[in-house]
Amino acid sequence: MPSFLRSYFPILDWSRSYNSTTFTNDLVAAIIVTIMLIPQSLAYALLAGLPAEVGLYASILPLVAYAVFGTSRALAVGPVAVVSLMTAAAIANLGITDPGHMVVAAITLAFISGLMLMLMGVLKLGFLANFLSHPVIAGFITASGMIIAASQVKHLLGVQAHGHNLYELLISLVRELPNTSLWTLAVGLPALVFLFWVRKSLKPSLIKLGLPARAADIMAKAGPVAAVAATTIATAVFQLDTKGVATVGSVPQGIPPLSLPSGDWGLWTSLAGSAFLISVIGFVESVSVAQTLAAKRRQRIDPDQELVGLGASNIASGLSGGYPVTGGFARSVVNFDAGAETPAAGAFTAIGIGLATLFLTPLLFFLPKATLAATIIVAVLSLVDFSVLARTWRYSKADFLAVFATILVTLGFGVELGVSAGVGLSIALFLYKTSRPHMAVVGQVGDTEHFRNVERHSVVTCPKVISLRVDRSLYFANARALENKIYDLVARQREAKHVVLMCSAVNEIDASALESLEAINQRLADFGVKFHLSEVKGPVMDRLRRSHFLQQLTGRVFLSQFDAFAALRA
Amino acid sequence: MPSFLRSYFPILDWSRSYNSTTFTNDLVAAIIVTIMLIPQSLAYALLAGLPAEVGLYASILPLVAYAVFGTSRALAVGPVAVVSLMTAAAIANLGITDPGHMVVAAITLAFISGLMLMLMGVLKLGFLANFLSHPVIAGFITASGMIIAASQVKHLLGVQAHGHNLYELLISLVRELPNTSLWTLAVGLPALVFLFWVRKSLKPSLIKLGLPARAADIMAKAGPVAAVAATTIATAVFQLDTKGVATVGSVPQGIPPLSLPSGDWGLWTSLAGSAFLISVIGFVESVSVAQTLAAKRRQRIDPDQELVGLGASNIASGLSGGYPVTGGFARSVVNFDAGAETPAAGAFTAIGIGLATLFLTPLLFFLPKATLAATIIVAVLSLVDFSVLARTWRYSKADFLAVFATILVTLGFGVELGVSAGVGLSIALFLYKTSRPHMAVVGQVGDTEHFRNVERHSVVTCPKVISLRVDRSLYFANARALENKIYDLVARQREAKHVVLMCSAVNEIDASALESLEAINQRLADFGVKFHLSEVKGPVMDRLRRSHFLQQLTGRVFLSQFDAFAALRA
Repeated sequence: MPSFLRSYFPILDWSRSYNSTTFTNDLVAAIIVTIMLIPQSLAYALLAGLPAEVGLYASILPLVAYAVFGTSRALAVGPVAVVSLMTAAAIANLGITDPGHMVVAAITLAFISGLMLMLMGVLKLGFLANFLSHPVIAGFITASGMIIAASQVKHLLGVQAHGHNLYELLISLVRELPNTSLWTLAVGLPALVFLFWVRKSLKPSLIKLGLPARAADIMAKAGPVAAVAATTIATAVFQLDTKGVATVGSVPQGIPPLSLPSGDWGLWTSLAGSAFLISVIGFVESVSVAQTLAAKRRQRIDPDQELVGLGASNIASGLSGGYPVTGGFARSVVNFDAGAETPAAGAFTAIGIGLATLFLTPLLFFLPKATLAATIIVAVLSLVDFSVLARTWRYSKADFLAVFATILVTLGFGVELGVSAGVGLSIALFLYKTSRPHMAVVGQVGDTEHFRNVERHSVVTCPKVISLRVDRSLYFANARALENKIYDLVARQREAKHVVLMCSAVNEIDASALESLEAINQRLADFGVKFHLSEVKGPVMDRLRRSHFLQQLTGRVFLSQFDAFAALRA
Repeated sequence: MPSFLRSYFPILDWSRSYNSTTFTNDLVAAIIVTIMLIPQSLAYALLAGLPAEVGLYASILPLVAYAVFGTSRALAVGPVAVVSLMTAAAIANLGITDPGHMVVAAITLAFISGLMLMLMGVLKLGFLANFLSHPVIAGFITASGMIIAASQVKHLLGVQAHGHNLYELLISLVRELPNTSLWTLAVGLPALVFLFWVRKSLKPSLIKLGLPARAADIMAKAGPVAAVAATTIATAVFQLDTKGVATVGSVPQGIPPLSLPSGDWGLWTSLAGSAFLISVIGFVESVSVAQTLAAKRRQRIDPDQELVGLGASNIASGLSGGYPVTGGFARSVVNFDAGAETPAAGAFTAIGIGLATLFLTPLLFFLPKATLAATIIVAVLSLVDFSVLARTWRYSKADFLAVFATILVTLGFGVELGVSAGVGLSIALFLYKTSRPHMAVVGQVGDTEHFRNVERHSVVTCPKVISLRVDRSLYFANARALENKIYDLVARQREAKHVVLMCSAVNEIDASALESLEAINQRLADFGVKFHLSEVKGPVMDRLRRSHFLQQLTGRVFLSQFDAFAALRA
C-alpha cells in the first residue's frame, strides 16, 4: 500500500490490527459518549440558534468522516460550546432571522469551514494555528464561556434576550427580568442546582459508596441525561408547556437529510471570514486535546492530517444537515477514560446518535429548553478561568496585555473581534519587541572563554576593543537600532580601534540588516575603527558568503569571541 | 533654557552659533536650490494633478517650518516625485474631478499627514518606519519611478491619458497615440533629449573646460531652468499655445493664500489611510537622506524630532495652499554640496520661492507642460533600479519575494496597494521564518569549550546526552516546533538520559513558550529523561525566576554548555 494513502487515510493503518478486544473497548466507550452527547448536541444547537435536530445531525456523519481521516485515537468530534457560539455570531452577522435561512447558513458555514481545513491540511498550513498564542486562547475561552453562560440565562428565565457581547446580553436580560416565567424558572433552577451538585459532589459520594473511581467519574458525566429525563417527564405530566415553559417541541424523526451548501456566492463571501476563524479556533482546541491524550499513551498525532480529518468532518456535516463541529475537550476525555482505542469508537457513537435520531426524538417533545440551558451553563463555567491574567502579569507584561485585550474585546465586541484582536496584538507586540533588540557590551569572565554583559558580571575589558553582543536576529525592523547603538558606543569610547559584533544570538541577517552592516563597516572605516564579527553561525556565514560584505569587511571573522578578544587586545 | 525646549525647537540650538560665515554659506546654497526648485515645484504639482501654483506654495512656508523644527542641517524640504504621485492616487481614490475640490483635498491631505507625523514624533513612534525594509523601499521607488515616467508621456505627446498603474497608463497611451500633437512633441522631445544630455554629459564637459568639479555639478543641476526658459520663449515667440501646445497658463501672482483644511469629516476619514502611507513613505525617504548627509559631517539627526519637523512642514503646507511635502533626495544633496550649514538655508530658499511667486509667475504663462514632463521623466528615471532584484535573489529569497511583490503590485495596482503589499509580505515572511526556527544538535569541538552543529563540524557527543541548540527566541509561533523536535530526538535516541537545551541564542521565552517548556519537562520526566538548560541569558533567567518552571525542572541550569556536557556525560 503506498504510504501517501496511509498518511491521508489513517484508517488503513489502525484497521489492520483491529480485533475483538479493541472492538469491545471501543463499543463501551461509544455507549458512554453517546449518552453524554445526546443532551449536549441538542443544547449546543440551541446555543447556535438552530433547531435541536441540527445538533443531532452534526453528531452522526462528521464522526464517521473523522474515523476515516483523523489521527487521534481518542478525539470525540461533534458540536462544542465555543464553535456553537461562533456559529451563532456568524449567522447573526448576516442579519437573517428566518429559521430556514439560518439552517442553510449553518450548513454552508460548516461546508466552507470544512473546505478551508482540508486545504490547510493538504498545503501543510497547520503552523498558522501557532499564531494563536496560549494566553490568547486561554483568554478567549474564558471570555467565550462567560458570554455563553450569559446567553443561556434567558432560557432559564423564559424570556427573550439578544446580544452577542456581554454588555448587550446583560442589558437585555435586566430589561426582560420583569417578564420572567416562574414555571420555567421552577424547572430550570433545580436542574441547574442538580447539575452543579453532580459536577462537584457526585463523584466523591459514589466513591465513598464503594464505586471504582473511573466508574464514578463516568456516572457523574451522565448527570445531564438524568436532568433531561426528570424535567421532560415533569413537563409532560404537569403539562408545563401550556404554562409557559418553552420545550424543544417536535423534532423530525429519521436519518439526517442530504443537504447541500447554498449556491449563493454572496453568502459564501460573507461567511468566509467567520468560517476561517471557526476553522482555526476549532483546530487549535481540537489538536491540543488530541495531543494531550496521545501523549498519555505515548502515541503521536499528525497536526496536518488532523486538519484533513476535521475538514472531512465539517464537509460531512455540511452535506448532512449539520453545522460546524470540532473535537470537544470534555467529551474526548470521557472517550479516552472509557477506554476508546481507535477512531472506530467515534463511528460507533455515530451509530448510537443515529439510532437516537430514529427512535428517541418523539420523547424530546416535552424536553424544556431551560434544562438544556442549565447543561450548557454548568459545562461552560468550568471553562472560565481568570488565573491566566495573574500568571501572565507576573511572567510577562506583553503576554498579559494580549490576554487582557482578548478578554476585554471578546466580552465587549463579541468572539470574532475578540480573537482577531488577541492575535493581532500578540503579533504586534512580538514585532515591537524584535524591533528593539537587547544589546549588551560584553567582557571576559575571569580566565574562562566566556563573555558576559559588563553590567551584570565582573569581567575583563580592553579600552581598544568594543565587544557588543546583539541578542536578536538582525532584520529590517531592528537593523537601524544596531547602527545607532554602535555609533553611540564608538562616539563615547574614543580610544576604541576595534568593534567586535558577537553574533552568537544572531540566527539570521536579512538584506536590510546586511545593508546596515555594510554602512557600519564603511562608517567605522571613516573613523579609523575596524569592524569584526565573532561566533557567526553556520547558516548565517553561508549567506554572508553570497554577498560582497566579507570582502569589504575591514576586520576579520573570528570563530569565537575569545579568539577575537585575545587577538585584538594584543 | 529648558532642554525639552531645545529638543523640540532645534533652531534654539543652532541659531546661537549663527554668524556671518554661516549666513553667506546658507545664502549661496539657498540661491542654487531656489533655481533648481522653481521648475521642480511646478512639475511635481502637475504630477499630483494640481495647479502649478500649489507646487510653489508647498515650497514656501513648509521650508520655514522645517527650519524651526527640523534637525538635519542639509535637508531640502518641498514637493517630491513619489509623494506627488501618492497625492495624485489619494485624490483619484476620492473620485472627484473638480479642480477646486481637488485642491481642497490636497490641502486637507497635507494637513492630516502633518498631524500624523507630529503625533508620531511626540509619541516617539519613529520606529514604525523600520518596518519598511530596505528592499521593499527600493522596489517601491523603482516601480513608482516607472509609473511616474509613464504618467508624464501624455504631456510629451499632448494627449489625455489616465490610470494609476502602469497597465492602465500604457493601454490609455497606446489608444491616444493617433491624437499626438506634433507641435507639443516638437517642444517636449528636444527638451527631453537636452535634459538627458545635461545629466549624462554636461558635467564632464564643463570639467574639461576647466571648471571646478563642484561648480560643474551645480551648473548641470540648472539644466531644467535653461530648458524651461528656452521652451517658454519659443512658445511665446511662435505662439505655439494656439497650435495645441498645452502651457501652464495664468498663475495667480502673490504670496500664498491662508488656507484651511476641509471641515468635512467624511473627507478626513477617506483620506486618513492615504495620509498615513504618505507620512511613512515621506518620512523614510527623508530620514535616510538626512542621515546619509549628517554622517558625512559626523553630525547626528534625531529621527523622532524629524517627524515633528516634517509634521510642522506639512501642517504649514496645509495652511498655505500647498500639498504634502517631504525632504527630497537630489535637492538635499545639491543643498549640501552647495555648502548649506544650517536649516536657515531652507528659510532663505523659501524667501527665493516667495519672490518668484510674487514677481515671476506672469513669465510662466507660456511654459509648456511638455517641458515640465520632460524634467520629471529625466529626474525619476534615475530612481529606477532593478539591481535590487538580482542582489536579493542571490542573498535571500524571502527578501527577493518581498521586493518582487512590491514592484509587481505597485506597477499593477498602484502605489498604495504596492507599498502595503510589500510591508505586509515582509512581515508575514519574517513571522513565517521565526515560526520555524533553526535547531541544531551540538557536540564539543575537540578540547575547546565550543559546541557546534554535529552535521557541520567534527565534534564529540555522548549517547546519554542530547544537546540541542535552538537558534531563535522562543515564542508562541515556534514553541510547538521545539516540543516536536525534542520528542522526535528522544524517540530516536533511546539511550538518552539527559536533554540539554542550549539557550545561547534564546533572547526571550514568552508565556506560550514557557508552557511548552513545562510540557517538555513533564513529558520527558514520564520517559525517565531529565531536562536541563545551558547558557541562559540574564534577562531570560530573570524572567524564568518569576515562574514556577525552575522549581519543577527535573534537571539543572548550567552556566555553559561545556559545564553541562562535562557534568552529564560523567
